[in-house]
Amino acid sequence: MEVQPVLIGGVWKKAQAPLGFFTATNPATQKSLEENYPVSSSNDIDQALQAACRAASELRSIPPDKIAGFLDAYANGIEKHREALIQIASLETALPGEPRLRSVELPRTTDQLRQAAAACRDRSWCRATIDTKNNIRSKHGPLGGPVVIFGPSNFPFAFSPAAGGDFAAAVASGNPVIAKAHPGHPGTTKTFAEIALEVLKGNHLPPGIVQLLFHLEPEDGVKLAAHPLVGATAFTGSRRAGLRLKKAADEAGKPAYFEMSSLNPVILLPGSLEERSEQIAKELFTSCTMGSGQFCTKPGLVILRQNPQSEAFFRCTLGLFRQAPAGILLSQNTLDRLRESIARMVLLGAEIVTGNREPDGPGYRLENTLLRVSGEGFLDHPKELQIEAFGGVSLLVFAKDNEQMLEIVESLEGNLTGTIYSESHNKDDGPYDKIEPILRLKVGRLINDKMPTGVAVSPAMNHGGPYPATGHPGFTSVGIPASLLRFTALHCYDNVRPHRLPEELQDKNPTGRMYRFIDGDWTQRDV
Amino acid sequence: MEVQPVLIGGVWKKAQAPLGFFTATNPATQKSLEENYPVSSSNDIDQALQAACRAASELRSIPPDKIAGFLDAYANGIEKHREALIQIASLETALPGEPRLRSVELPRTTDQLRQAAAACRDRSWCRATIDTKNNIRSKHGPLGGPVVIFGPSNFPFAFSPAAGGDFAAAVASGNPVIAKAHPGHPGTTKTFAEIALEVLKGNHLPPGIVQLLFHLEPEDGVKLAAHPLVGATAFTGSRRAGLRLKKAADEAGKPAYFEMSSLNPVILLPGSLEERSEQIAKELFTSCTMGSGQFCTKPGLVILRQNPQSEAFFRCTLGLFRQAPAGILLSQNTLDRLRESIARMVLLGAEIVTGNREPDGPGYRLENTLLRVSGEGFLDHPKELQIEAFGGVSLLVFAKDNEQMLEIVESLEGNLTGTIYSESHNKDDGPYDKIEPILRLKVGRLINDKMPTGVAVSPAMNHGGPYPATGHPGFTSVGIPASLLRFTALHCYDNVRPHRLPEELQDKNPTGRMYRFIDGDWTQRDV
Repeated sequence: MEVQPVLIGGVWKKAQAPLGFFTATNPATQKSLEENYPVSSSNDIDQALQAACRAASELRSIPPDKIAGFLDAYANGIEKHREALIQIASLETALPGEPRLRSVELPRTTDQLRQAAAACRDRSWCRATIDTKNNIRSKHGPLGGPVVIFGPSNFPFAFSPAAGGDFAAAVASGNPVIAKAHPGHPGTTKTFAEIALEVLKGNHLPPGIVQLLFHLEPEDGVKLAAHPLVGATAFTGSRRAGLRLKKAADEAGKPAYFEMSSLNPVILLPGSLEERSEQIAKELFTSCTMGSGQFCTKPGLVILRQNPQSEAFFRCTLGLFRQAPAGILLSQNTLDRLRESIARMVLLGAEIVTGNREPDGPGYRLENTLLRVSGEGFLDHPKELQIEAFGGVSLLVFAKDNEQMLEIVESLEGNLTGTIYSESHNKDDGPYDKIEPILRLKVGRLINDKMPTGVAVSPAMNHGGPYPATGHPGFTSVGIPASLLRFTALHCYDNVRPHRLPEELQDKNPTGRMYRFIDGDWTQRDV
Repeated sequence: MEVQPVLIGGVWKKAQAPLGFFTATNPATQKSLEENYPVSSSNDIDQALQAACRAASELRSIPPDKIAGFLDAYANGIEKHREALIQIASLETALPGEPRLRSVELPRTTDQLRQAAAACRDRSWCRATIDTKNNIRSKHGPLGGPVVIFGPSNFPFAFSPAAGGDFAAAVASGNPVIAKAHPGHPGTTKTFAEIALEVLKGNHLPPGIVQLLFHLEPEDGVKLAAHPLVGATAFTGSRRAGLRLKKAADEAGKPAYFEMSSLNPVILLPGSLEERSEQIAKELFTSCTMGSGQFCTKPGLVILRQNPQSEAFFRCTLGLFRQAPAGILLSQNTLDRLRESIARMVLLGAEIVTGNREPDGPGYRLENTLLRVSGEGFLDHPKELQIEAFGGVSLLVFAKDNEQMLEIVESLEGNLTGTIYSESHNKDDGPYDKIEPILRLKVGRLINDKMPTGVAVSPAMNHGGPYPATGHPGFTSVGIPASLLRFTALHCYDNVRPHRLPEELQDKNPTGRMYRFIDGDWTQRDV
């Protein structure tokens, strides 16, 4: 049996004593793809850690411009190999080549890499702070060990552990990466790593900056996140897997960042439905079923008042959900877990009003599904009903009055986003002003009048939020430069001789443009 | 029996069903002081949490200037009650009134409060970030629940849970505080809380901003750090107690910050000892015995080369340690743990060269103690020998060559500080350049040519470091504005209508001076 090699220390090599093998599956045909990939054992892991630590040490003396050069060249390389990437990702994920992979996700990926390159060149991201009176200087610097990135199923490009947002942030802040592919798209991840390695070599950079393992047994993943040589861990995926890694990393005192699930509640205030019920129904439908609903920011919970307008809105939404074909899900596991989530909601009193059937024909598919429950029904099991259903599914909660609506919002767990739709001329400001202070504390990104899917790569973005959406409410995984700070330590230099300081903390501004916080002012000047 | 009341919701009240009582002890006389303090049960804890959440909610609509006004007035109030504070702290801690309490720690405390007030007024600390093209705006904001502060034994003023650095940072960032006093100085903490309450009332602020419990059973402390209503926890103290709280907070997904122990290695390069052996011996002696060695930045580990110069340095240091009287330690527990740490070092092969005897007469005291061990000896038990001995104790490690010195540095755990002394004209740059990259990754603050005690309250300070010195290498507990960010969540506003934005994110700069990151530039201008 031919088995794909892993990438360790700049070399594609046979996995050492692998614990098993797997293939990817085409979700549209439900047929296995040809290539066999290894489940790495501790042999591969240990080798990768050693190589990563060498790379981390070498990275310390490589100028940021050179790292930026790599990130830019990598973006170019990805564009050069666009067709190959789209072809393999289409096979492995069944996500539509056009527009999703070609026109949305691939440009987003290269844009992230280029923004990271720009941040790396600019250097302001490291928040250099200089106190001239006390001669104390500090900045954020790399961790000295690899960032281990566990990639998710749903974004084969933009959240790829070998090319996505976490990757760009880790490398731009000076850290090597050990990518743990999602087993759903090992070939896509491998193609990225091949391009990355070629570009690293062409740019005369340590090849250990990017390494790739395809799969690990859960207990080995846990050991890795807690390993003394690891710098940090980034994980995007299910809550169950995330919490297991989090516990291990926390106990080892290792920084680790998790994006673990989110319902993304959408609150429709009465005036908004009076004003533009049909438009909001369309927006909800689109946001909920886009990418077959497999987005971390999919609106999975809609909270609205019980009244004739909301019933009209409901009928309109129902029509849209009913008429749309079932999208293809990423895997059998996705389908199983989706059905399980829906079944649990039903068990807890939610009513399926449409969907939840597997259509005939090939492909992992489930009809778009709407559920509804009364405010009382929701408040009977507020915690248990907050279940992420990863697919084209949403639960509508009909509150009997404003007070109950507040009570429902009060019961929400931490989420990535929270959205409030309101009437255009601020007639809903009364309830808005009551709901907002509660919702604000429950979500990372508070949105007005648009659905939560679509996460702009903006310096002001927060793709994060309170637990259990993530592990810490102060960090974002999307948005440069803030996302870089996750993979750093605060490095203070007290009375250190000038020639021994890193360039960013010397008197002379190393780029002439870098922002530094000098004696209480953000400035681009020299000391 | 008269029992001191706890402060809950603005009222000094009798503890409800307390689990026990305790008194403080004067460490100089070893005699109990008069006042009885309660060990609070869950009754007090639950009430305090409820009151804190009300205060957190009220704080949201209180202008930062008003909070700043409180912090300034509190600093004034502390100065007004200076004599009472010094008197009670002297009794409870036996720290010298002059210069320590009066001229060092009290001014530091009021300075921290005033710096926090200035940060609060200035508002730049919240890192407002505005992306005008996408209309996404974000800033750091309060957590919506109290910050629970577990105060340490060694700084009754500057790290007081009711007046110190964590307190100032938590309040300035908009959070109420539940102070958990250190049982060594309950009366001092109570005096602070009395002043704070008076000032809060005088400034018409919610009295629930400052609450005080004197003592908790360990399991109740653990429950508190994990409580759903808590915003965050800050802890300064022993590693054992810290790790217990950390586990609970981590499992509950609650932000929590720990300062848990540090050896603060000092590396003396050969040229520095050739040049100024006697001066360095004096500096080491002073830094090691100041405050009876009970500083988190006390140099507990000195690494030097075995040669005639280092032996001369050793003899000089020995003389200083021998001639100095034993300082008073904070408690019987401090003394017991100190002796235990020394005994463990001896068991692991370190040799006591002076000290380790309890002098006659009253007071918890131990003679200043020096231990030494060879490089080989240290490397036989590198991890086990890294024991914080909280008192006037230091372990000298004599490396046989530069390579062994590197190996010792490589074996270090995470520390708050790491210091390198070198010859003044850079003759030691060879070994420095080899040691620094390793040491840099092990410490929060890297120091040249001075001892680590003395932590300036500077924006560039890092009083933090890699685990196990703290729980996360990216945060500092000293240094404003950075210390405020610990007690915040990142709050993003996406497409939110202008009148609903917090002032800091509206087009107009709310103070005219606040720095905001607008479209890639740090600026004080309006949008």
